[in-house]
Amino acid sequence: MKNMQQPSGMPAHRYTPYHEQIKVELPDRTWPSKRIERAPRWCAVDLRDGNQALIDPMTPDRKLKMFQLLVGMGYKEIEVGFPSASQLDFDFVRKLIDEDLIPDDVTIQVLTQCRDHLIRRTFESIDGAKQAIVHIYNSTSVLQRDVVFRSDREGVKQIAVDGAKLCLELEGMLERTKVFYEYSPESYTGTELDYALEVCNAIIETLDARPERPVIINLPSTVEMATPNVYADSIEWMHRNLARRESVILSLHPHNDRGTGVAAAELGYMAGADRIEGCLFGNGERTGNVDLVALGLNLLTQGIDPEIDFSDLDGIRRVAEHCNQLKVHERSPWAGDLVYTAFSGSHQDAIKKGFERMAEDAERAGKSVDEMTWAVPYLPIDPKDVGRSYEAVIRVNSQSGKGGVSYLLKADHGLDLPRRLQIEFSNIVQGRTDSEGGEVTSDAIWSIFSDEYLPNPSREAEDQWGRFELREVGSSSTLGGETRLTVVLRDEQTLRDVESAGNGPIDALLSLLRGEGVEVSLIDYVEHTLAEGQDAQAASYVELELGGTRYWGVGIDHSSTNASLRAIVSAVNRGLRARGVVGAPEPVTAQSV
Amino acid sequence: MKNMQQPSGMPAHRYTPYHEQIKVELPDRTWPSKRIERAPRWCAVDLRDGNQALIDPMTPDRKLKMFQLLVGMGYKEIEVGFPSASQLDFDFVRKLIDEDLIPDDVTIQVLTQCRDHLIRRTFESIDGAKQAIVHIYNSTSVLQRDVVFRSDREGVKQIAVDGAKLCLELEGMLERTKVFYEYSPESYTGTELDYALEVCNAIIETLDARPERPVIINLPSTVEMATPNVYADSIEWMHRNLARRESVILSLHPHNDRGTGVAAAELGYMAGADRIEGCLFGNGERTGNVDLVALGLNLLTQGIDPEIDFSDLDGIRRVAEHCNQLKVHERSPWAGDLVYTAFSGSHQDAIKKGFERMAEDAERAGKSVDEMTWAVPYLPIDPKDVGRSYEAVIRVNSQSGKGGVSYLLKADHGLDLPRRLQIEFSNIVQGRTDSEGGEVTSDAIWSIFSDEYLPNPSREAEDQWGRFELREVGSSSTLGGETRLTVVLRDEQTLRDVESAGNGPIDALLSLLRGEGVEVSLIDYVEHTLAEGQDAQAASYVELELGGTRYWGVGIDHSSTNASLRAIVSAVNRGLRARGVVGAPEPVTAQSV
Repeated sequence: MKNMQQPSGMPAHRYTPYHEQIKVELPDRTWPSKRIERAPRWCAVDLRDGNQALIDPMTPDRKLKMFQLLVGMGYKEIEVGFPSASQLDFDFVRKLIDEDLIPDDVTIQVLTQCRDHLIRRTFESIDGAKQAIVHIYNSTSVLQRDVVFRSDREGVKQIAVDGAKLCLELEGMLERTKVFYEYSPESYTGTELDYALEVCNAIIETLDARPERPVIINLPSTVEMATPNVYADSIEWMHRNLARRESVILSLHPHNDRGTGVAAAELGYMAGADRIEGCLFGNGERTGNVDLVALGLNLLTQGIDPEIDFSDLDGIRRVAEHCNQLKVHERSPWAGDLVYTAFSGSHQDAIKKGFERMAEDAERAGKSVDEMTWAVPYLPIDPKDVGRSYEAVIRVNSQSGKGGVSYLLKADHGLDLPRRLQIEFSNIVQGRTDSEGGEVTSDAIWSIFSDEYLPNPSREAEDQWGRFELREVGSSSTLGGETRLTVVLRDEQTLRDVESAGNGPIDALLSLLRGEGVEVSLIDYVEHTLAEGQDAQAASYVELELGGTRYWGVGIDHSSTNASLRAIVSAVNRGLRARGVVGAPEPVTAQSV
Repeated sequence: MKNMQQPSGMPAHRYTPYHEQIKVELPDRTWPSKRIERAPRWCAVDLRDGNQALIDPMTPDRKLKMFQLLVGMGYKEIEVGFPSASQLDFDFVRKLIDEDLIPDDVTIQVLTQCRDHLIRRTFESIDGAKQAIVHIYNSTSVLQRDVVFRSDREGVKQIAVDGAKLCLELEGMLERTKVFYEYSPESYTGTELDYALEVCNAIIETLDARPERPVIINLPSTVEMATPNVYADSIEWMHRNLARRESVILSLHPHNDRGTGVAAAELGYMAGADRIEGCLFGNGERTGNVDLVALGLNLLTQGIDPEIDFSDLDGIRRVAEHCNQLKVHERSPWAGDLVYTAFSGSHQDAIKKGFERMAEDAERAGKSVDEMTWAVPYLPIDPKDVGRSYEAVIRVNSQSGKGGVSYLLKADHGLDLPRRLQIEFSNIVQGRTDSEGGEVTSDAIWSIFSDEYLPNPSREAEDQWGRFELREVGSSSTLGGETRLTVVLRDEQTLRDVESAGNGPIDALLSLLRGEGVEVSLIDYVEHTLAEGQDAQAASYVELELGGTRYWGVGIDHSSTNASLRAIVSAVNRGLRARGVVGAPEPVTAQSV
């Protein structure tokens, strides 16, 4: 079985492998044996990195909504803008401060390049805040030093150091505001590690980082350039080598160009980082920043409190979609419309059994299901824990099997079909989906089910049943004796009074039908109540053999006796219909209901 | 700077950490020091795993389009359906075979559970294909053994072995079809490693894997349950321990529940796998399968041929969106609408400089830019290599700076603004975006530019200029002598003939204007041609000082002399306008054009 793949003609020769650009070597790395055991310190940058990447950046109103959402979820460090680069951002920061909109335990963060007039303007913007993080950056990568700054290592380091010095100078003029600092060697992933360290250490010294006033050193994968283990190696190396490590808060800021931003954040955190910057649902420049929702709920599935409240995830999503004017994708981790949905038959079957087992275990333990350890196949989170219902979990299309169909009948109508009936009915549903395509809603399934097994209320009265119909039924029995049935029977267009007897009502009706010329015998019979209480209905499922073939019938009635009699008539009518006998109406299609 | 985060109230206690469920221990792992050096063997499962997860599964027509897309891109192993579970899938496989739609070097793959009647039906479906992979699976996880199968390890293993035996039996009946096998211990990530190995080895023995007929062992992260390094550890362990390793093709099938499917595939491949199954743009159950586009183009950026043709990525996307009836997200790696777009001013500036440097380097090397090693900040792939243009790279919103605005004027109008003019004009644009919000298109920028600096053709003739206008200009000069200007000058509503002289036309016009009472002096002057050839126009940029303030003016004309004269008038009119003098029309807004 030879590999038949061929060269593609894509110009791979134009690209330089990462290891030929930047050396990251750490053979004695320890992070792959580490495990995440608590939430990192989070910083939400939706109002800055997220906002700057929008086709339609946030209006002041949308900015405030996003800020309040982040505060409400529990984020305590929030980058609110780039005030020196945009009047809107400047005004927004002022508004937060002047209108006292920042809770005492929340610290705003503002970004600025390491340039004199921008830093001055930035300090103007934060005057009066209780505390603020001034986040200074300059680009340090090999490529940008060459192309953008046309400067050498020493020159670019000096830009950073001069910026830090100016900050210290300006800080003295803010009387009411406690200032903290963050420094990012921007385009870190394109920077030689030893040089990144040199610049960061110079900043740590210049700002005189101390345990009581630590400096945040943020190492962004401004552009994701390699597999995430390489980023983790580089973070572990920096973690080991940074000066005054105990006075440094080591922060990550992963982008997602290669689709591995979440992995980079997780492995980098295992490698020694303390803090992660990202955006809700992975908004941000190009492919976005690392997704804070994915990171947070990934922790939850490992039994770790994310220290962020995701309990109304749909509400969070609505606000974010409004503020960003970008939709969250159907398959976005933990949040997309389809991520708790199983269309595949075997998945549906397993989920159904998982739910049942949890219910059994809860009952045995005398607890509610919500208190039990979560263990349902294909659902790594209980949708209810993030505010979703179970409604969207099972959805039926042509690829679904009996599991999904049965689940929906049980969830929405209380019917617990016997296994062989599940198979019979799912074949009927699949016949429709195969010919008509598309998803089949729970309502459509119910209509197909009614049409096949029950008097279908969407049809004219005469079409609701097949050849036979029980118009009236009286039954009498004595303990230990036989049961007598008196029936007003419609057979096609004629009504007749008929009597019969047997050792129970089912037996009596079967012998009555045999008297009408229908050779029928009982194979299986199951009945259950549909709900608790006096007014509950019963559902009966009867499997009959008719002319060598087996048919299921279903009956629903307040009386369990009548339910079983209806089920027999249902099965007999279906059998006669299948054999080409009269009284077989055209099926109702899934689309028509 | 204390961490102020608080417990969230999320029910973390309901979730069991992965390491308490499944032991994966490999302290002597080697994969973190490996690098990917060639493309894996790919298998596209869009027609099976992708299709089963769609709200509206593919019609036969859409199925065929997807198949042909995958074949055209270069995929040689394509899972085309689950024929025993759906009549549509069965019919589609028959159609491919009966209508001879499968190229000789492409192998179709069909999935089936390890169940007797399903396997029989599967073999019916492939009869007549030149070759086919029969992909059998059963679920092996702790949870599913307990909840779904209610069976023990031995019993579940026997399901797999019995399935494999039946396959060998049925294989003999297919005379025209060469059959290969793939086995998946489904829900592998929830299965004890030693047990997964036991089952896989039993299958390898049963199917008698040999180098000339290897067996594909596929280890799916059916549900992604831990950080991707744990998956990689488990793959390396299996890779080391699988029986007859040289006769086994070790395959990965990562899902993306935690958002780390791409990372799991890459690290797992580094850990010893040979083959990766996935879907275009990450379609598939819940959060989807691993994204084949991300994986393929990640290789390209490392100088590795993906062996798949992504050169018309937008075309690929259109077909996939049509077949799946799901949109590719704006930020989907390498393919989304926004992933090659920079809105941020500093990014735009760096990209612009990167493009310029590449053009310079190419010219110096006597090559075209397409032949040069790609090195542009913030753009890890040349958009042209995947069939995109540069048009969408720079887009301007309120967060953008001079870089984007200047880039668009250069790209779309050939204007190369001097740096101080860039700053002046980008402040004008930002004033508009700050007050009006939203993206500013290149057309809108041109309109703002015209309105500010040039006679704006969208205005009435009288409003196109400010106080002064040169209606006619004659100039004469002698070598080494002075330049004489004769001008028909409109000053407000009056036309006059005026003459002037200077040591060049600029000097002459400035002294003419001084004669009209406008105290003006020249600060800077730059001019360039707009295009090559006889009919080329020239663009002039003039910076003047007027009443202590500096103003830029711009002139465009076929004559370089006239361009510079127009630029002077432009600057003077702007200066007078700014000082509240007559002839200042209301600005055209970005929205109104």
